[in-house]
Amino acid sequence: MSGIADVAQRAGVSKATASRALSGSGYVSEKTRARVLAAARELGYVPSTSAVSLATGRTNNIGVIMPYTNRWFFAEVLEGIQAALLERGLDLTLYIAEPGTEGRRRIFEDFLARKRFDGLIAVGLEPEDHEIEKLTAIGRPIVGVVSAGPHAGVVALDEAGAARRATEHLIALDHRAIAFVGGGAGTHYVSVDLARLAGYRQAMAEAGLEQSIRHVPSPDSLPGGYEAAVDILADSRSRPTAIIASCDEVAAGAIIASRRLGIHVPAALSVVGIDDHEYAEMFSLTTMRQVPRDQGARAVEMITAQIADPDREPEKVTLQARMVMRSSTSAVDPARAASAADAARGR
Amino acid sequence: MSGIADVAQRAGVSKATASRALSGSGYVSEKTRARVLAAARELGYVPSTSAVSLATGRTNNIGVIMPYTNRWFFAEVLEGIQAALLERGLDLTLYIAEPGTEGRRRIFEDFLARKRFDGLIAVGLEPEDHEIEKLTAIGRPIVGVVSAGPHAGVVALDEAGAARRATEHLIALDHRAIAFVGGGAGTHYVSVDLARLAGYRQAMAEAGLEQSIRHVPSPDSLPGGYEAAVDILADSRSRPTAIIASCDEVAAGAIIASRRLGIHVPAALSVVGIDDHEYAEMFSLTTMRQVPRDQGARAVEMITAQIADPDREPEKVTLQARMVMRSSTSAVDPARAASAADAARGR
Repeated sequence: MSGIADVAQRAGVSKATASRALSGSGYVSEKTRARVLAAARELGYVPSTSAVSLATGRTNNIGVIMPYTNRWFFAEVLEGIQAALLERGLDLTLYIAEPGTEGRRRIFEDFLARKRFDGLIAVGLEPEDHEIEKLTAIGRPIVGVVSAGPHAGVVALDEAGAARRATEHLIALDHRAIAFVGGGAGTHYVSVDLARLAGYRQAMAEAGLEQSIRHVPSPDSLPGGYEAAVDILADSRSRPTAIIASCDEVAAGAIIASRRLGIHVPAALSVVGIDDHEYAEMFSLTTMRQVPRDQGARAVEMITAQIADPDREPEKVTLQARMVMRSSTSAVDPARAASAADAARGR
Repeated sequence: MSGIADVAQRAGVSKATASRALSGSGYVSEKTRARVLAAARELGYVPSTSAVSLATGRTNNIGVIMPYTNRWFFAEVLEGIQAALLERGLDLTLYIAEPGTEGRRRIFEDFLARKRFDGLIAVGLEPEDHEIEKLTAIGRPIVGVVSAGPHAGVVALDEAGAARRATEHLIALDHRAIAFVGGGAGTHYVSVDLARLAGYRQAMAEAGLEQSIRHVPSPDSLPGGYEAAVDILADSRSRPTAIIASCDEVAAGAIIASRRLGIHVPAALSVVGIDDHEYAEMFSLTTMRQVPRDQGARAVEMITAQIADPDREPEKVTLQARMVMRSSTSAVDPARAASAADAARGR
């Protein structure tokens, strides 16, 4: 393999000049730089990244920290980040920091302190106070996706707004007994569930339906939605006429449960989700669409801008979900809705 | 922030000695090393990883390359790798190299050549010939999960064996009209599908059922399995009595399709999967269990052993799936099986 001495010799310059030309630090004329780069290319020379890092103080690497990768939202954001980093020639160091694990503790204690990145993207991290201290101590730009870290730019969905508009859609179809299924089961992602739940409550309250507010906790997963829906759909007297799910996987689970119980969607039960998950189309699910890949790409734009100009004011970008109408919602049968709503109020 | 000069001063040694003690390269007495490490701890000193890398020639970083992260198998392997690396204090640089993309081309052309890792774990990569050349040129140990790279150790499931045993289970329950659903739809992961399909064909042939072999291609996803199953279950004359799915997501899709069509599982249709995906329990799915997290952990063991001893002979570890019996399979109704099998043969 060729070393920097070979490159210098071929370009007819000193090793020090070749090094300056390749690392981009220190003065070299444009003509000399072009000659050195051409020689490096011809020889297939790849600079030691450790040496380049020492010379430039840059790692050309972005850290990404998230609690999970084996869930739709996180995996999609990760792919969006990776694609955007590849375009810019930047590496990605991944830290999977599941809450409450020894691995998460070590990431905060040891790994982040090594600062092997020029900036950090934190996805749905929800750091605790002592973790926020550690993040602050790193002294590198941080951008959050979903939730903000310290001194950080943020890309986030208007979660409450998405749930509010989904609920308003059901109310406009004359539904009154509308249950919110999902979240609050001690799983990940708590702030998002709380925001979505708050949006549902707000829409219900604004329509004078405080008495009909009903939250059925479940894990934010297809099996979680299935189990919760079997419970609330089994009793025909207290059965809601519509469900808003904390996410599309919960909505899909609820639709599978309805089919198993012989309850027709949407004639006897309307279901609306949030996300536009890859399963949404298969279940003909009306949902509030977000595009996590684009959020990942946006976070990369923000972190590279902050690295280039550390004095730049951190931005907060709030995205609005877009309603995708499929066929899991329809107007309620007035007689049926009234009796179900009465039952829900215990009359 | 404290630098190495502060550490050296506090420990009462020269900067060169402090550096040797901290990097682990070059001779330092145990007593001196302990004093330097204590001083570093007290001052909260974290060595520049670039400097350590230059001094030791090690990056303490493992590269992981995989075509996707937004699929169950890949995400689970990734979490297994990450957990095992965290235990060892090693970083993880991720390369998502989806086949046929510009991103993949750049990873092979530019990113891997930087050698920012001591070893590379390639998960389900299925490199083409020119990509294998690039991998070889890196000159770092490579371990494959699923498929082997050049000069690489491998951790792999006996895919054909898993499908063969699942098929034998159905044959033992007197099924004859057994369709293999999934794979062959131009999606990812081709070698695994081919191996699983081969295992199915082998079991059918050994039971004298060559005439009943039927492969229904579909994407390896829940919606893919759903669409394919709707097609083959709609015509009651040619309907199989049993389905073996290329993976559990396809099996779950087939079960959802059966419910929609009013075909009872397992009384009228047996379904068996491969994977033991997180959805398997919800669908009461009998399946062949693999544990991708453990495969990721095993790959880390192998790569660290190869980094420690480059002359070590690369290993090939083949894992056997374990059958998990739930309630999606049952003995066939003999009369129905005969007519369905006849129909399948076009009689």
